[in-house]
This record gives sequence, C-alpha cells and structure tokens, in this order.
Amino acid sequence: MAPTVFQPEVLFAGGRLQPGGQLVVADDGSVLAAAPPGARVVKLPGKLMLPGLVNAHSHAFQRLLRGRTEYVAKGREADDFWSWRELMYRTANALDPAGVFVASRQAFLEMALAGITTVGEFHYLHHQPDGTPYADVHELAKQVARAAREVGLRIVLLRVGYARAGFEQPANPLQRRFCDPDPDTFVHRTLELRRALAGDPAVSVGFAPHSVRAVPRGWLEAVARHPGEVTHLHVAEQPAEIKACLAEHGRRPVELLEEVGLLHPKLTAVHAIHLSPSEIEALGRAKASVCACPSTERNLGDGVVPADALMRAGVTIALGTDSQADIHLLDDARQLEGHLRLVRGRRAVLDPGGGALSGLAERLLRCTMEGGARSLGLDVGALTVGQPADFFTVDLAHPCLVGAPREALLPAVVFGAATGAVSEVAVGGKLLVEAGRHPLTEEIGRDFAALVSRTP
Amino acid sequence: MAPTVFQPEVLFAGGRLQPGGQLVVADDGSVLAAAPPGARVVKLPGKLMLPGLVNAHSHAFQRLLRGRTEYVAKGREADDFWSWRELMYRTANALDPAGVFVASRQAFLEMALAGITTVGEFHYLHHQPDGTPYADVHELAKQVARAAREVGLRIVLLRVGYARAGFEQPANPLQRRFCDPDPDTFVHRTLELRRALAGDPAVSVGFAPHSVRAVPRGWLEAVARHPGEVTHLHVAEQPAEIKACLAEHGRRPVELLEEVGLLHPKLTAVHAIHLSPSEIEALGRAKASVCACPSTERNLGDGVVPADALMRAGVTIALGTDSQADIHLLDDARQLEGHLRLVRGRRAVLDPGGGALSGLAERLLRCTMEGGARSLGLDVGALTVGQPADFFTVDLAHPCLVGAPREALLPAVVFGAATGAVSEVAVGGKLLVEAGRHPLTEEIGRDFAALVSRTP
Repeated sequence: MAPTVFQPEVLFAGGRLQPGGQLVVADDGSVLAAAPPGARVVKLPGKLMLPGLVNAHSHAFQRLLRGRTEYVAKGREADDFWSWRELMYRTANALDPAGVFVASRQAFLEMALAGITTVGEFHYLHHQPDGTPYADVHELAKQVARAAREVGLRIVLLRVGYARAGFEQPANPLQRRFCDPDPDTFVHRTLELRRALAGDPAVSVGFAPHSVRAVPRGWLEAVARHPGEVTHLHVAEQPAEIKACLAEHGRRPVELLEEVGLLHPKLTAVHAIHLSPSEIEALGRAKASVCACPSTERNLGDGVVPADALMRAGVTIALGTDSQADIHLLDDARQLEGHLRLVRGRRAVLDPGGGALSGLAERLLRCTMEGGARSLGLDVGALTVGQPADFFTVDLAHPCLVGAPREALLPAVVFGAATGAVSEVAVGGKLLVEAGRHPLTEEIGRDFAALVSRTP
Repeated sequence: MAPTVFQPEVLFAGGRLQPGGQLVVADDGSVLAAAPPGARVVKLPGKLMLPGLVNAHSHAFQRLLRGRTEYVAKGREADDFWSWRELMYRTANALDPAGVFVASRQAFLEMALAGITTVGEFHYLHHQPDGTPYADVHELAKQVARAAREVGLRIVLLRVGYARAGFEQPANPLQRRFCDPDPDTFVHRTLELRRALAGDPAVSVGFAPHSVRAVPRGWLEAVARHPGEVTHLHVAEQPAEIKACLAEHGRRPVELLEEVGLLHPKLTAVHAIHLSPSEIEALGRAKASVCACPSTERNLGDGVVPADALMRAGVTIALGTDSQADIHLLDDARQLEGHLRLVRGRRAVLDPGGGALSGLAERLLRCTMEGGARSLGLDVGALTVGQPADFFTVDLAHPCLVGAPREALLPAVVFGAATGAVSEVAVGGKLLVEAGRHPLTEEIGRDFAALVSRTP
C-alpha cells in the first residue's frame, strides 16, 4: 500500500476534533505524523472521521438467534436469561465448522457496516457436539478468525475455558462443545492457538475463563498465574450467579477474583451488573476494565451496569454487542448512558463535569474506542501517531446528522447517528467499506440465509 | 393515480403475514379487495410490506436540539428534565415561521425515511415570541402542516392549550408563545384551525390541553365538553407533576382527568409513567390510550411506562418520537419492551402468551400502527380494505434482516431492523420514498443546516 493522506471534513483523533485535519497512513498501515512526498491523497468531503469502534465482547454465531428468541414458547411459564440460554445452546450445537464461519462472517459484516474495526470474540465453540475435539483442535477458532479477516476486521480471539454447568453440576449435554478437560489443557491450548495464528498481525489471542459459574476455582488460579495476559470473564450478569458463588466460595464473584489474583489491569469483567460497593472499589483499585453490553443486557433483562460508580472508582468501561440482538455500538454507548438516566432519574449521568460541550459524548465515545482497546490489550482507538489507521467516517449530510453544529458534532454522533450514516471503514488504512458498501455484502448474506434455512 | 397492485415478497396486512400477498390501491389511494382490470403492477421483490408507522407524539421543531443538550453547562449543578426544558424553550423562541417550517420538515423527512407515514404533532408554538398572535393566528400551525405535506406525511395537528408555568405560577416569559388567553379562545381557535385545514384529507386537527401543570381545571373542563374529540395531554411524566397536582387539586393527574370528564376513549395520556394502580385501572375502564415515548423518556430520565400493567387494564398503547432525540419508531417499540425487561428482570414482558412465534412482535408492531391510529382517531394502520394505502417496506436482504426465517420475520423487524433497511414508503398509495431515497433529502437538509447555523 502506498502512503495515503485521508482528508475528511473533520477529523477526531488524539481526543481532539480537528476541522480540516488529515490522517496520514504509512505503507504499513500505521498513522504517520506528516505526509511523505508522493503520498496518495483521498479526499472525503462532508465526512467526519473517527477512530474505529472496538467491540470488546461478541459471540458472533449468536447472530443466528436474532428474532428467533423473542417469544414465550407454549407450555413455558416465562422467558428469562436461563430459558434464552437453552435456545442459544440448541443453535450452537447445530453448527458445523462451515456454519460457524458463515454465521460469524455475517455478524462481522454487520459490525464493519456499523463502524466497528476490532472485535473481541469470546469464543466458546471449540469441539464437536459430543465434546470430541476436531482433528485440528483449533478448527472452529480458526473459522472465526478467517471470517473476521475476510470481512477485514481486526480480531482478538478470547478463548473460553469451560468446565461445568455450575457449582456441583457437571456440564450439561448441550455444553460439551465448550469444555476442555482441565485447566492446564485450557491454558496450553490457548497459547497454542496464539502460536497458530501468529502470522497475521491483525489477529491476537487472550484468555477467557467463562465465569465463576462455569469453572471451578482451580481454573481461575491457573489463569491467574498469567497476570500479563488479556483475560476476560463474565461476571455478575444475573443475581443467581451471586447466590451460587456465595454458596460455593463464601464470597461474591469479584471477591473471589481478587482472592485468586485475577484482579489485574488486563482483566475485563464482562457485564458486572450486580456488584457490591466494595466489589466496585476492588475493580477500581486493580485498574481493571468492565465491558458493558447494554443492548444484550436489555434484551436479556439483566439490569444496568453501574458505569457511573465504576468510572468514579477508576474502572475503564468498554462496550460490546454480545448476543448481536442488534449491532450498533454507538447505540450501545447511547444505551449505557440512557439506561442509567432511567434508573437514576436524571440526565448526563456519565458527564465528567466542567461544562465541556462534548465532555459526555467524548467520554461515551472513549468507551467504544480506547476503552475497548485497553480491554483487548491493543494499541488502537485514538488514531495517534504509530497506531494502526483503524477508522470510520460518518456522512455529515445524512438526515440523522445534517446541520449538527461543530460544537455538537460528537454529541450528535453518540446520541443520534444511525448505522446508515456510516460511510467509510478502514483497518490498517485499508478501506473495507466505501460509501456505506462492503463488496462482500451479497455473498455473505446469501450464504448466511442458506445457513439459517438449514439450522433448526 | 391509476389503480396499482403492489407485489412485495411478503405482505403484513390485516394482522396476517402473507407471503406472495399483494396490496391493491384504488385511484383514490385506498386499499381495494381485488385488482381492477388494467391496474398498474409494481413488483417489490425481496421486500416485506407493512402498514405505515404512526408516530403519535412529536414536537417536530425539537429536531434542532439533537446533540445540543447533551452536556452539563458550566456552573449548573446537574442536568434534568427541567434544565433541559429551559434549553428547549430558548430554541423554541428563536424560531420565526420560516424556521418552524424548515425544522419541522427535517424532522418529518427523517420520519418518512424511518417508515413513518402519519405524525401526531403536539403543536404548541402558536404566537410571536412576546405572545402577540401573528396576523394569521394559525400561521405556525399552517407552516407545520405544510412541512408534513411537502414531505408527504399524513398529519394530525394536536393544537396545544397552554396557560401558565404551573400551579399558582403565571407563564414564564419563555412560554408566552404557547399561550391562548382563555379556554374558550383555545377551543374556538382549535376548531377554527380545523376548518382552515379542511381542504386536505391528509390533515386533521385534535385538542391538546398541554398538561395538568400548564392549564388550570377550567381548561380541562372546557375540553371535556367535547368528548368526541381526539384529545392528547402530557400526563405524569415527572414526579414533580404529581406533587404539584396533589397540592393544587388534592388528587393525582389521572384522578383529576376522571373527575373533569376527560377520561374517554378518545383521550391519549402521553407518557403516563408515574401512575398509581388505581389510575391505571381508571385509564383502562375509560378505554383510553397511552402514548409512550421511550427514546425521549430515556433521554430525559423520566422513567419507564408501565405498559404491561396498562395493557392488562385494557389501555391501548401508542408510540411517539417526541423530542426527536432519534427518529426510529421501531426502536421505540424495542425500547418499550426492553426498558420493561430491565426493570422487571425478565424477558418477553409484553408477550401476550400462547406461544405464538410472533405474538410479542405483533403486539409491539400494533402499538406503532393500530395503537397510534386509534390514539389519533384515524382509520389507518392495518392495510385493511377501505383504509388509505399507507405502508412501508423493508429490504429483506439488508444485513440487519437477511436470512430471517418466515416465522421470525416480524420479531426480526421489531428487534433488529435499522432505519437503513426501510426501502419504500407510501401515503395513500403514493410513494414518498423509493429504494431508501426521498427526492427532497438534499434540499431539506441544506435548508435545515442553514437554519441551525443562525439559531442560538
């Protein structure tokens, strides 16, 4: 790739809104301070360019469930997180490697079209439905990585460790695909997967012991022996988890993580909804991250992440599309703030104060950019010199944004942008989406529709 | 217009999903049972056609505020409904008749692009900023109606009666534009406006005494003497209103409405968040409607409309985009259910039961269609024979919908459709939007941007 100078109408980079600013991309896809002689110029008039969105928590294959879990089946009393999970497991178990690829690619395509340039894939489909590993034990992880790279996304595969259905319960038959036999095998396979995917700088691998529910203490301890590793786990999504953790360990989930040594700056607690004040303090002391997934937490009736208290305690907030109920990470930022407004009964809950016109919007954007980057252990999300040129643009003439005055540009994007306003999307300076179009849209959609029709 | 047969891939009409169904439109724009000989055929392959969305509560000019109220100004302690309202008033007072037209037209354009075919405009900008009527007392209402009709929307102008800032408080200087001198003048002007606009069958006029806060009892009684009239008012949006109502009248807002005779089948209580159980029962007994505006109620931190209890009591639920924080009425339906999931801690809160695959989705869609139609007193929203052919289509190949199986089509639309999936939009059989494009988009946006730049 030749060095390229992108010239949008307005650039948001390094935390500054720069009318007339330009982004210079080196031939290796990183951001340069100034244009080298002979650099190609790409003009993007009428566009606002921003750092690409980082989706820190995704289960790509769950795109298959959209719309299919939105009713109470006859004979069931009610619908909740746990009954939803049974439906999700049935879909998970129907997928072969090609199906994992096709479903993931559709989700990743939608992400790209929504301005997402990096995905953290919390990957737990490892083995054949009966639990037997594939000939290549990393078959499915590689399918997911291939799907992301074909769309053009940067991906962090968070390889999940799974052992059981819960405290004193073996894995149920629908969970066999997720399970490794023991914590050492889990750690070994995760490091092995990293080596297998090392050839592509846009792919990396982290640890994801699923939750305090799905792994016993020994697994958490095994992962805690690698404190330099990006580590994600589901924490405190549902009240039942707190109860079970207290019964098994005599302490709440974050207390348990602290005790085993997992509270460190590279830890991300996904959801982290039902927290005690002292758990919030502990996450802050550890400089850990929390990944909120408001569109999914709303869909599943989980509750609202106390992002205000978490931010005050020093926790970094990232955002994720999780179950792909819909894929619009800017709207997840909107919901994070909006759900807090609903439960706190006031506006501007996450406003950092000081009266800055876009203080709140910038803070929310930062969750979708630098927050996600920190959670995934990547140096992306700000378009500063040396970072990869991962960006997206929005069309300032789109009806949802038109007329937004300069000082309200970021608030208009965070609070009002539709996915249809996304115009260009690039990873490492390479455009995946131009004028709102991804060239593989039809092929990916056709394959996905065929997959849906053969998936029960 | 020649009779036309629209042939979408799938038609949702009369409450039934009809693959291969067709919509026949007479030359007067109404739905026919069968195609007359020589009718023109318009094929819409790959599209799902649905009744047009009815936006039952809009303040169109507030489109100007998008993004501009999303921060806490220096020196202010906090941001809430009441501080937001001050900002909104300042914008309202800066608009001349041309500005009202231009701002409204932008909002209506976005509505059309989101599949909305009818808007109920809760119109309270009546007079010059100092309170003096314009030479034509209906100048601004006519500007709003013209804006809707130029875009192509059907509109119900709900003419607002406004008298004061609150209990024992005269109108504050920023409210002078809204005020008529007395209830008789308000009623008279409303009926007069109806006569003035009677030439266009796509325009109608209803009553909107603003709220129990903004008008004294005598105004409510004056409107209650017209029980056959479509009547909207803001009810129980904020706890402070309940307190003030108890102080002034010794009863809660809905109790007051019942006492003065305003609880009738043509009444719509907008918001209706902070209700007692007996107020919910009273609304149900009266067969009244409630219009929820979840995107605005979230933005303003109002709280969650108890739509589950209201539906159980027999209340019809409609939906509105209100402050235009964003304009995506399907997402308002998603939020109505979603916010209830957050506060109830379960899924499928508004599911009618019975295990129907799309029971919940249909019920939510009905709020955006027949619910809104009932609230506005119009016979639209179902595409049954004789109704106006107001419809929109979504592109089933759009990445947010692709692959949705037939039985999950409506759930996929309600829970996952982006505005970008909206393809055709028609009012009375006449297409305003084709392939996602409205021909006036650029002109409307340009005028709006110019207006923003001269509005403080």
